[in-house]
Amino acid sequence: MNQPTEPKADKSGVRRHNLSLVLRTVHEAGETTRAAVAARVGLTRPAVSSLVEQLLDLGFLVESGKTFSGQAGRPGTVLKPADTGPAGLGVEINVDYVTVRVVDLTGTDRVRRTEHLDNREPEAGDVLARAARVAAEALDAAAERHLVPAGAGLALPGLVCDGTVRQAPNLGWNEVPAEALFGKALTALRPGTAGLPVASDNEANMAALAELWSGSLGDLRTFLYLTGEIGVGGAIVVHGELLRGAHGFAGEIGHLVVDAEGPLCRCGSRGCLEQYAGQAALLAAADAGGVPDLARRAEAAEPRALAALAEAGRMLGRALSAAVNLLDPEAVVLGGIYPRLMPWLTPALAEELADRVVSGLWTPDAERLRPASAATDAARGAAALVLHDILADPLAHTPAPSA
Amino acid sequence: MNQPTEPKADKSGVRRHNLSLVLRTVHEAGETTRAAVAARVGLTRPAVSSLVEQLLDLGFLVESGKTFSGQAGRPGTVLKPADTGPAGLGVEINVDYVTVRVVDLTGTDRVRRTEHLDNREPEAGDVLARAARVAAEALDAAAERHLVPAGAGLALPGLVCDGTVRQAPNLGWNEVPAEALFGKALTALRPGTAGLPVASDNEANMAALAELWSGSLGDLRTFLYLTGEIGVGGAIVVHGELLRGAHGFAGEIGHLVVDAEGPLCRCGSRGCLEQYAGQAALLAAADAGGVPDLARRAEAAEPRALAALAEAGRMLGRALSAAVNLLDPEAVVLGGIYPRLMPWLTPALAEELADRVVSGLWTPDAERLRPASAATDAARGAAALVLHDILADPLAHTPAPSA
Repeated sequence: MNQPTEPKADKSGVRRHNLSLVLRTVHEAGETTRAAVAARVGLTRPAVSSLVEQLLDLGFLVESGKTFSGQAGRPGTVLKPADTGPAGLGVEINVDYVTVRVVDLTGTDRVRRTEHLDNREPEAGDVLARAARVAAEALDAAAERHLVPAGAGLALPGLVCDGTVRQAPNLGWNEVPAEALFGKALTALRPGTAGLPVASDNEANMAALAELWSGSLGDLRTFLYLTGEIGVGGAIVVHGELLRGAHGFAGEIGHLVVDAEGPLCRCGSRGCLEQYAGQAALLAAADAGGVPDLARRAEAAEPRALAALAEAGRMLGRALSAAVNLLDPEAVVLGGIYPRLMPWLTPALAEELADRVVSGLWTPDAERLRPASAATDAARGAAALVLHDILADPLAHTPAPSA
Repeated sequence: MNQPTEPKADKSGVRRHNLSLVLRTVHEAGETTRAAVAARVGLTRPAVSSLVEQLLDLGFLVESGKTFSGQAGRPGTVLKPADTGPAGLGVEINVDYVTVRVVDLTGTDRVRRTEHLDNREPEAGDVLARAARVAAEALDAAAERHLVPAGAGLALPGLVCDGTVRQAPNLGWNEVPAEALFGKALTALRPGTAGLPVASDNEANMAALAELWSGSLGDLRTFLYLTGEIGVGGAIVVHGELLRGAHGFAGEIGHLVVDAEGPLCRCGSRGCLEQYAGQAALLAAADAGGVPDLARRAEAAEPRALAALAEAGRMLGRALSAAVNLLDPEAVVLGGIYPRLMPWLTPALAEELADRVVSGLWTPDAERLRPASAATDAARGAAALVLHDILADPLAHTPAPSA
């Protein structure tokens, strides 16, 4: 996959491929030289220089004044990905907030906006219009930094397929054409974004990609990712790839049944995990006003808070024992509200895993439970997905001069 | 993957690859000609003829007297995979039986032996020696048909990794080096099998491969496979590949918890699926003497039999709803004792899936529940795995003249 393609039949196709190869190589290195790129990708120096010139002209790369003596050849001018120009716009719409991020080609988060609001009451179209407004404001801030969106990623809390939210029980959405509605609303606010590609996916999938690409997991390539929100989202990563299933609906850990006769869930089933370990259920059980309040009460060893967290941990452990028995992951990564609450969730959670996982690999001290890193979330993953698209084919993402 | 490799540096490596390519092409076609093979694989006629001569000499292919006018060129002599010579030996050791199959290069089952015996009481070494005895007898029958084993596949009801059964709760095995013990026992009985490669895996994985390769699933490439035995085994196939997880332990559907406070399971947990839908649990609940007896009682509408089957179906549905929510498969294939019992298991099972699967795709009439085909089982899969190895590198499986 990382091999250069030598010119054969389709010369422009080959050049496109090699432009991507050079851009990805510079992106991964952070700072490098033409000679080091040539050595790395196996193309000639003149070929690399020509590709680099085009990437400089199009604004994907910049030269710094510095020279750099790498492992290959004479000192050369340092190349870096541009921190202006094409950028990824990531938008997460969740039940009680919208988060927008703009990430530049170096991978740095340049703009971040979060608005807390209840997305359950308004119509789907109005929620998407709200998200578009937050995105438009973020794009204004990005424009001041000379960043132009090359695409938008849309992270949504539900079953997403072909640009449409098939079902999002916690939002009450069914068959909502989210990509189209969001794109239309954004274009109405900022006509320059007309034609901007929008790609949507489940929010847990996006957050898992953010975690995978952040480097914080080291060599970990097979893991489960849980996001604690109003709902509980889940994603499955196997050997570095999202497992999506036959229709893109895999990973619905929040709807694993932990008590068959338990309370009704908005999905129509009973006793789903999110009825115990979702944010709303957990705060209600603890009689807490929010996650920071819950953490304070737990730190003060308030019995009701501790009991609610232990019960949520136990139910997380019960659902995760099923997921671990089925999928045999190396680790479980807990995101959303969970990292802050792990001190009180983990004991009961780890005990359930130790009791119920057949392989015996999930002993309580196995350290296979890990918090998601603070820098990653679904909006970050959605923006990173756009970056991946740019890196895979920069020519397809040349910013329009008017945008 | 199916492209021919043109001679470059390692000539013998290229020839090995092309021998495999030609043998696989003939195997898939069943009957074909040199010209058709050449057209299919994109090698020259003389190159294909040379490869075919070698495969004929080594006994992997035979010519029939017939000529065959295919889509390419003049009528040619018909080539077929040999139905003598290298064969796959498949051995399934389960809790209450051992099944051995010998499958020839055409894919035909040539010898089949099943011995019903209780494998829970004896030591692991004795159970493997018993299985070796059944295998040795099957090899005698195979030798009369001029078939020589090129390898053995060993299907085992537990967590299998690196030739060792890490844990098989229903056999009471822990850390049993099954491949080595089986190979030694077989060699003691039939010295000609010394050095025979043995490959082991979980029995549900082997049975799922048998089903996948049998062609009976049509285009279905993403499915769950359940085997009802004393235990309940499970396998996950995603886009035509077994999902094995980080350590090879994925697919343990039998130990999904369906009632957290339910009866103790031999795995150490409580309320595992197999405590309700495993063969022993089901027969005890129905007060039946065996699966045929249970089916007879159900056909006679005996209330206790119907209630036991409905309860097993409900628990299967509960566990499968978790697996379907996590994995989003196209279908669930039920093997082992289940196909015979599906008329009584399916109603409650399908109802649970309809109630609990979030995507709403698993309506009771969705026909996503299917019986495994009668011709496939874990022993068949184990033998087929050997065939795949032969087809992938025939030169590595040239039968020793003395074997």
